[in-house]
Amino acid sequence: MTAAPGDTGLLAPGWAGSAAASATSDHAYLRALLDAEAALTRAQAALGLAPAEAATAVTEAAGAGAFDVRSLAERARAGGNPVIPLVAELTKAVGEEYGPYVHRGATSQDIMDTATMLVAVRTLDLVLADLGRTERALARLAAEHRDTALPGRTLTQHAVPTTFGLKAAGWRALVLDARDRVRAVRDSLPAQLGGAAGTLAAFGAYGATDPAALPAAYARELGLRAPDLPWHTLRTPVADLAGCLAFTAGALGKLAVDVLTLSRTEIAEVAESSGGGSSAMPHKSNPVRSTLIASAARRAPQLAATLYGSMAAEDERPAGAWHAEWEPLRDLLRLAGGAARDAAELAEGLRVRPEVMREHLDLTHGLIVSERLSAELAPVLGRARAKELLTRLASEGRPLDQAPELADADLDPTHYTGSAGALTDRALERR
Amino acid sequence: MTAAPGDTGLLAPGWAGSAAASATSDHAYLRALLDAEAALTRAQAALGLAPAEAATAVTEAAGAGAFDVRSLAERARAGGNPVIPLVAELTKAVGEEYGPYVHRGATSQDIMDTATMLVAVRTLDLVLADLGRTERALARLAAEHRDTALPGRTLTQHAVPTTFGLKAAGWRALVLDARDRVRAVRDSLPAQLGGAAGTLAAFGAYGATDPAALPAAYARELGLRAPDLPWHTLRTPVADLAGCLAFTAGALGKLAVDVLTLSRTEIAEVAESSGGGSSAMPHKSNPVRSTLIASAARRAPQLAATLYGSMAAEDERPAGAWHAEWEPLRDLLRLAGGAARDAAELAEGLRVRPEVMREHLDLTHGLIVSERLSAELAPVLGRARAKELLTRLASEGRPLDQAPELADADLDPTHYTGSAGALTDRALERR
Amino acid sequence: MTAAPGDTGLLAPGWAGSAAASATSDHAYLRALLDAEAALTRAQAALGLAPAEAATAVTEAAGAGAFDVRSLAERARAGGNPVIPLVAELTKAVGEEYGPYVHRGATSQDIMDTATMLVAVRTLDLVLADLGRTERALARLAAEHRDTALPGRTLTQHAVPTTFGLKAAGWRALVLDARDRVRAVRDSLPAQLGGAAGTLAAFGAYGATDPAALPAAYARELGLRAPDLPWHTLRTPVADLAGCLAFTAGALGKLAVDVLTLSRTEIAEVAESSGGGSSAMPHKSNPVRSTLIASAARRAPQLAATLYGSMAAEDERPAGAWHAEWEPLRDLLRLAGGAARDAAELAEGLRVRPEVMREHLDLTHGLIVSERLSAELAPVLGRARAKELLTRLASEGRPLDQAPELADADLDPTHYTGSAGALTDRALERR
Amino acid sequence: MTAAPGDTGLLAPGWAGSAAASATSDHAYLRALLDAEAALTRAQAALGLAPAEAATAVTEAAGAGAFDVRSLAERARAGGNPVIPLVAELTKAVGEEYGPYVHRGATSQDIMDTATMLVAVRTLDLVLADLGRTERALARLAAEHRDTALPGRTLTQHAVPTTFGLKAAGWRALVLDARDRVRAVRDSLPAQLGGAAGTLAAFGAYGATDPAALPAAYARELGLRAPDLPWHTLRTPVADLAGCLAFTAGALGKLAVDVLTLSRTEIAEVAESSGGGSSAMPHKSNPVRSTLIASAARRAPQLAATLYGSMAAEDERPAGAWHAEWEPLRDLLRLAGGAARDAAELAEGLRVRPEVMREHLDLTHGLIVSERLSAELAPVLGRARAKELLTRLASEGRPLDQAPELADADLDPTHYTGSAGALTDRALERR
Repeated sequence: MTAAPGDTGLLAPGWAGSAAASATSDHAYLRALLDAEAALTRAQAALGLAPAEAATAVTEAAGAGAFDVRSLAERARAGGNPVIPLVAELTKAVGEEYGPYVHRGATSQDIMDTATMLVAVRTLDLVLADLGRTERALARLAAEHRDTALPGRTLTQHAVPTTFGLKAAGWRALVLDARDRVRAVRDSLPAQLGGAAGTLAAFGAYGATDPAALPAAYARELGLRAPDLPWHTLRTPVADLAGCLAFTAGALGKLAVDVLTLSRTEIAEVAESSGGGSSAMPHKSNPVRSTLIASAARRAPQLAATLYGSMAAEDERPAGAWHAEWEPLRDLLRLAGGAARDAAELAEGLRVRPEVMREHLDLTHGLIVSERLSAELAPVLGRARAKELLTRLASEGRPLDQAPELADADLDPTHYTGSAGALTDRALERR
Repeated sequence: MTAAPGDTGLLAPGWAGSAAASATSDHAYLRALLDAEAALTRAQAALGLAPAEAATAVTEAAGAGAFDVRSLAERARAGGNPVIPLVAELTKAVGEEYGPYVHRGATSQDIMDTATMLVAVRTLDLVLADLGRTERALARLAAEHRDTALPGRTLTQHAVPTTFGLKAAGWRALVLDARDRVRAVRDSLPAQLGGAAGTLAAFGAYGATDPAALPAAYARELGLRAPDLPWHTLRTPVADLAGCLAFTAGALGKLAVDVLTLSRTEIAEVAESSGGGSSAMPHKSNPVRSTLIASAARRAPQLAATLYGSMAAEDERPAGAWHAEWEPLRDLLRLAGGAARDAAELAEGLRVRPEVMREHLDLTHGLIVSERLSAELAPVLGRARAKELLTRLASEGRPLDQAPELADADLDPTHYTGSAGALTDRALERR
Repeated sequence: MTAAPGDTGLLAPGWAGSAAASATSDHAYLRALLDAEAALTRAQAALGLAPAEAATAVTEAAGAGAFDVRSLAERARAGGNPVIPLVAELTKAVGEEYGPYVHRGATSQDIMDTATMLVAVRTLDLVLADLGRTERALARLAAEHRDTALPGRTLTQHAVPTTFGLKAAGWRALVLDARDRVRAVRDSLPAQLGGAAGTLAAFGAYGATDPAALPAAYARELGLRAPDLPWHTLRTPVADLAGCLAFTAGALGKLAVDVLTLSRTEIAEVAESSGGGSSAMPHKSNPVRSTLIASAARRAPQLAATLYGSMAAEDERPAGAWHAEWEPLRDLLRLAGGAARDAAELAEGLRVRPEVMREHLDLTHGLIVSERLSAELAPVLGRARAKELLTRLASEGRPLDQAPELADADLDPTHYTGSAGALTDRALERR
Repeated sequence: MTAAPGDTGLLAPGWAGSAAASATSDHAYLRALLDAEAALTRAQAALGLAPAEAATAVTEAAGAGAFDVRSLAERARAGGNPVIPLVAELTKAVGEEYGPYVHRGATSQDIMDTATMLVAVRTLDLVLADLGRTERALARLAAEHRDTALPGRTLTQHAVPTTFGLKAAGWRALVLDARDRVRAVRDSLPAQLGGAAGTLAAFGAYGATDPAALPAAYARELGLRAPDLPWHTLRTPVADLAGCLAFTAGALGKLAVDVLTLSRTEIAEVAESSGGGSSAMPHKSNPVRSTLIASAARRAPQLAATLYGSMAAEDERPAGAWHAEWEPLRDLLRLAGGAARDAAELAEGLRVRPEVMREHLDLTHGLIVSERLSAELAPVLGRARAKELLTRLASEGRPLDQAPELADADLDPTHYTGSAGALTDRALERR
């Protein structure tokens, strides 16, 4: 089956075809591995440890890109990672004179980790852009519907009124929290350079007088942060990525599950701009964006768990914990990237139906303001009798506006949205 | 970046290039989706609900396979699954006359779930074959080393002697447990057929007098089990797959972590037949098979967790829980498939060094049989004084064979392997 | 704070106060540990390896139960498990003459694992009883509502009609699947006996001529299965427990999420018999049973993942993987036990509102039978034109019974439940 | 079994008896719930919404503490959380006059979440203290062993030399990373106050002119951060706790797995100050601290996953996602607290054996410096021939110092520790 094309997301409508998909493909990883190799030679040249011509030669050979990903993938098996066969090929491509400067002094993990950080930075930038679109659209919704009342729902039941503005402001607050966490992690991601066991010893053997200066030079070439220590088994960057990506998936998941609920046929207070069709039913308009985001939110936490679990990495390079990071981290980047794309579309196109919300406020015939009545009747009737009265009326199912005891009460649910407006205003001040 | 080739396992040396990789590729899923569509029309023809020519036409069009996976993947986004665009294309390929018989009465999930079961059965057969190779190789090791003593280790410390035969017999017992569980699940996997909401109603609308007979006919076409009920949101098959695959990864993981420990430079009681090289150190011979298996064992449980989590699937088709199954289930099939391949190679090639094991039995200068001495001295000295004596000798670090109190004791560790041989024999009787 | 009482489930309304809570308390584990110790001495007496009086003495001392759980818990820290301090206390309680027969030849793990199996068997029996109550109540619901039509919902939207009978039959099928898996695991759980490193060597040192006969005798004393091999690091029983308990939580979770959806204020097709109150709103009647079951279903998969992860247990006793099993396995037993209790109450008391279901079938003004119309119009108008017509009518939002093209169509949704009745009947035949 | 004492950690030697255990007991949660109720009345009094006497009365009644945790736990079941029965009891204890001021305007979740934050802050302070002890002890070890060479190990095999100082500095760097993350989260934890659906409406009904000012006043009473918005379903604080606690467990897990490896009988380069005993073998000295930390590191990621999963919380209070947070968050606090305690003891007492490390550097007869030889021979022999020579010598197993080709080479491994010393110095500058 060697002629079969590779995977392109047939099982992943949540991220297939997205910019994040391209930024995390095998091809993109290969690109990043080659970038990491080229930068290594350039950094050595910059410090006088290699001729400038070697840097040029390696950069050119790396850029030419005539490498066969499938073949590299299969040959990766012998040594357990794809850098080993790649270095052999790249060395050959660079040629006899400057070939020895390829990968000089480095270990596979230096290149693999650095490439992973490059891929992460590139993908997080895409995530940040889509989180930005999302929060701006949600800000507009929140402002527009600052005073649109709808039922607040707790444990599936109508509780007291709230506003759609406050809901949207809450979604946005989570998106901003995600943005802040992603941005902080993005800016912290370091290059990796330690050599065989993290001591930088080989660089000394190759003539460096201050090998400890090399990682910073390397990081500069790549636009990554200079590492404090080689982090072959100090996996802070990977754990931080796990955290911010699981957070992002969860933050967008909140938006998604709310839209799913509010889109239900019986509720229909919102609708996605263009729902998905059905292979069987011509009338169906499914909330597909929300569905795919919700799906991502279900998967991300367990992927993050695998990454947190790999922190307990023994020795100077662990036998399994490191290898267990690669696919889950990519999956997280893809899921977050896809979910952010879907969230942006969802937020930008969400259709809101204030009139349906208004109708629903009356579904419980006044009980949705029972908390208010409780508060207002308590001083008059005493707390216990007030509660008793309302519980009785609720159980009788009689509309409250027909209860003589409540003849003077303000039963308008839109008058009982509390500080929803003020809270929305305050939340929208955050940038 | 549309011209970029798809993913072929660059980040996954554990399964890249394996038979399981081919059996679970996007291409293989597409094949299975088409098989499912063709079987559906054939089953309807078999029950007289469609002309035989329609069955032939759909089967031929499905077999021709001129479908573009990447394009389907990207168009899957609109409706949230790849069946919708596939049905459109297949219908067109079948042509005007018999096109209407494509997918007739079915829902996307019928096809998607059925295809997933086909892929699972095909991959589990590969897993079973490699588990078979593994257990036979381990049986040979267990028989050959029935009486090869080595240190039993608990909480990282030498405890009492055991035998390598018993260790290998234990590994094999786990592999057989995995085989039994995988085989039982493999034979239980059902076809899926329920129509839009699991009532089979459309088949009646299309003229079936006994629509409930159709799922069994469909299953027969595919070699799958006939379902008791449509299981759109009764996810027993997927949960069972999760369980047996996580079990398999864990069972092989036990073998792997033991080989990793016994391969350590300081221990070196076993070695993989051909270790992996290093990009930096010419002498390195890494236990790569074990490393990759251990990596799979770290990931599988969390993937299984996502699948168990999807059991709580609301309504007649859930908005997210179902979609969250697809990639994790494939990942599990790949990880188990790759790990079984690696385990077979590992077990078949494992080099065992009885002489090193023998040397290690003396590392504690007799203390490894302290339990035996404890037992034998207790009747003579009393339990407390016996323990006191041995604890004192242990803390002094003096070789026990120089202790006058133990002049008559049998300190030969190879004489203290208890029932290891008998237990090994008994375990090897299991087939 | 030593005088503070222990934990009794303040954070766990899902299992606090249940029979499963009692069966899994620290106290119950202590009881099981003592049972395991007493059985060990009795088994040795049964094989002539200890005087009958020793068996009696140990059994009596173990039964007296004057052991301080908190103190044992804190002293467990020194050696990493509670068996070590317990053996010391029990030996002392037995007295000088027979004290030496306490724990003779065993290792802490023999007792800890055996006690865990005892606790598991006792708790699974409670789970099975509540699954039985649940499935019987669901069978009644399914039979009673065999023909009660309601909207089938997919991706949150009305799809085609189904019946409440089929829904209940589906819930029951999952409960039966859980029961079958729990029962099979329950009957497979083995005693643990291997001695220090699983070779049974110490029993030989203490005079047994056939130590390999001891585990079976031990298992007989406890009503557990005789192990094939000591399973200190062959964790099949624990992994099987993980699987069947995660399955159970998921199976009940499906019931719960459906009840939560159907209970929503806007849907209200079912209601829990007595909803939970609110601290703030007198009218609230929350679906608390479903909420607590759903909460368990969210947690169980990750707990199971930890247990599957512990299968990769190195050596003859691992440094961490074993210890990581104890609390998660108890948590799973509690969550499954509590969820089964809640599910039984939920199913037995569920209030069903057929008239509300009937009303909802009309919410889409006939579109809920669009699939049927599609099928019936296709032969007349052609597939494409039929779909076009229905899509147009759907988008116009015009009630279908006012469309002249559909004047003769049967738009009664209760006539379009397909094989729901037949499927329900078939499912109810399963016992 | 109602008379049985509660759980006190019998299955949890990793945290039983620790300060974190006390800080997270049911009793401690009850304390925090009462603190939260009392602060609420005081905050209302501070804003003139309740008489000062009410604040005093509630604070006194809450402080008296005559509440039965077990009874509250069991009564929590009816409404799904323990606040409901607690409010009833507290109201009664306060008495008729000021009882109505108890919990006025709040919802259960306000109190439950706020109490959880109080417990979290109190426990994180303990964690921070023990992380401080740990990092100081590790700093001492790193400084003392700045130049103590030992084998660097990758994929279980000797690679090149490193230093124990650099290992300890790396452990410390992770501990500092954990500290920074824990501290940031600790200082960010907000009080919760929103009322029934997060609009603060009831406070208005009870007379507040600016209800939005109340949350800040409430937070001040408790020493928590003022929330930007009610966060009933915006679970940033819980997700952040999940992240920093999983990080901490993983960071300490790295230390633990390294100590476990280095403690192995065959390696024995380090030892815990006082190992744990064995119930069967008098000589055993087990690395129990590391074992328990490693166990925590195996469990924490999956617990964090559950919490990240709960971010997708529908509506204004979710039916299950919220409830699923309580126990896992407490478990994480306990595991991190216990692991930090164990890590502090471990680091403070670790025994280091430089002479054993030195011996191990010779185990590969010079191959441990093959990378250096490679680098030095390459210019002389060419890269390919140099590699060939070393690979041949390695495969022959001949000591390198007997190879005539290497007569002039510096084979002293302690001369090949690269920048380990400089990196250690740099790392120790971090505070």
